[in-house]
Amino acid sequence: MTNEKEKINLSALFRIGYGLYVLTTNDGRKDNGCIVNSVMQVTSNPLRVAVCVNKQNYSCGTILETLKMNVNCLSVDATFDVFKRFGFQSGKTVDKFFGETPKRSENGLVVMSEFCNAFISLAVEQTIDLGTHNMFVCSVEEAAVFSDLDTLTYTEYQKNVKPKPVAPKKKSYVCKVCGYVFEGEELPPDFICPICKHDASAFELMK
Amino acid sequence: MTNEKEKINLSALFRIGYGLYVLTTNDGRKDNGCIVNSVMQVTSNPLRVAVCVNKQNYSCGTILETLKMNVNCLSVDATFDVFKRFGFQSGKTVDKFFGETPKRSENGLVVMSEFCNAFISLAVEQTIDLGTHNMFVCSVEEAAVFSDLDTLTYTEYQKNVKPKPVAPKKKSYVCKVCGYVFEGEELPPDFICPICKHDASAFELMK
Repeated sequence: MTNEKEKINLSALFRIGYGLYVLTTNDGRKDNGCIVNSVMQVTSNPLRVAVCVNKQNYSCGTILETLKMNVNCLSVDATFDVFKRFGFQSGKTVDKFFGETPKRSENGLVVMSEFCNAFISLAVEQTIDLGTHNMFVCSVEEAAVFSDLDTLTYTEYQKNVKPKPVAPKKKSYVCKVCGYVFEGEELPPDFICPICKHDASAFELMK
Repeated sequence: MTNEKEKINLSALFRIGYGLYVLTTNDGRKDNGCIVNSVMQVTSNPLRVAVCVNKQNYSCGTILETLKMNVNCLSVDATFDVFKRFGFQSGKTVDKFFGETPKRSENGLVVMSEFCNAFISLAVEQTIDLGTHNMFVCSVEEAAVFSDLDTLTYTEYQKNVKPKPVAPKKKSYVCKVCGYVFEGEELPPDFICPICKHDASAFELMK
């Protein structure tokens, strides 16, 4: 858990508090949604929100093309199925809203009211290239509240939503971020989580 | 709570989940600490964290000059006194560490272990001017964990840490962000909270 320099305990980074969100977009052919946690209001006047998205997420390219997105704030009643649906598969290959006629905001994107306590429509003003991720600084175009339930925090997700891993038969490593399990004697040091794209440092040996 | 356009319910912005942090800096003459909530990890490789700070905070100028800061993650045992000390007064006029000999990280800045579960030393790589605020994109230089207590969320602060306002004798407005009370018949529309710098939209009539 401590890196080469022995100065950075990566667990400290997990002490940063986050909410969890379904980011909805539309690539021109279909609606999509993915799970993100890096959302913060950055100014009040004008009202602006920053969202950080991994470039490997299908949504990232869609945002670059369309310059819009909805942030749907997950509430404490969100189930693990929500994470499986939006977080454990990719819009590259799956139509996550197939057969549905979801509610839409004025920008035409999906608004999720189930398992969410609010939504915010964002228009990208500035894209900051951070290498593996893009940070989008956005103006707020529309926003509504659905319930008084608390926002689901990442900590709550880890404690109460994500199923406890069952004792593995063979040696395996679990991603502390999303729960993905890698089976094998040794996790390759350059391994990237196929689900949440965190690197090997996010994994720990399952006991 | 709904703006002119009737499309943006500002309460939705309060559904974004945040942790709370004491940001420590040193202006060359004294240590300082202020309360912030806008902190997020933006990349893993390299490890980078973004912090957004209001330009009216004394710390903002210090960061621009020194290009370094420590983020101390407040834990659920933090008391309202911590917020009064670091959030309800300014380093412009007060020496918040007067007479103390605090613990320091390798960058020379104060590390707070009491009421905090971790700290992260940051070096500014990029400053993004957002008008009222600066967003600092930083590399992580050092990080340690102090306890397994959960990070204090902004929601928890609102519910359990901030004292309930006592019934006012005259009409008054309370800042939903920090608890500051404005006494008067009407809150000026251009009013800025003297404590947390949020605008009039963050205030509600006290009942």
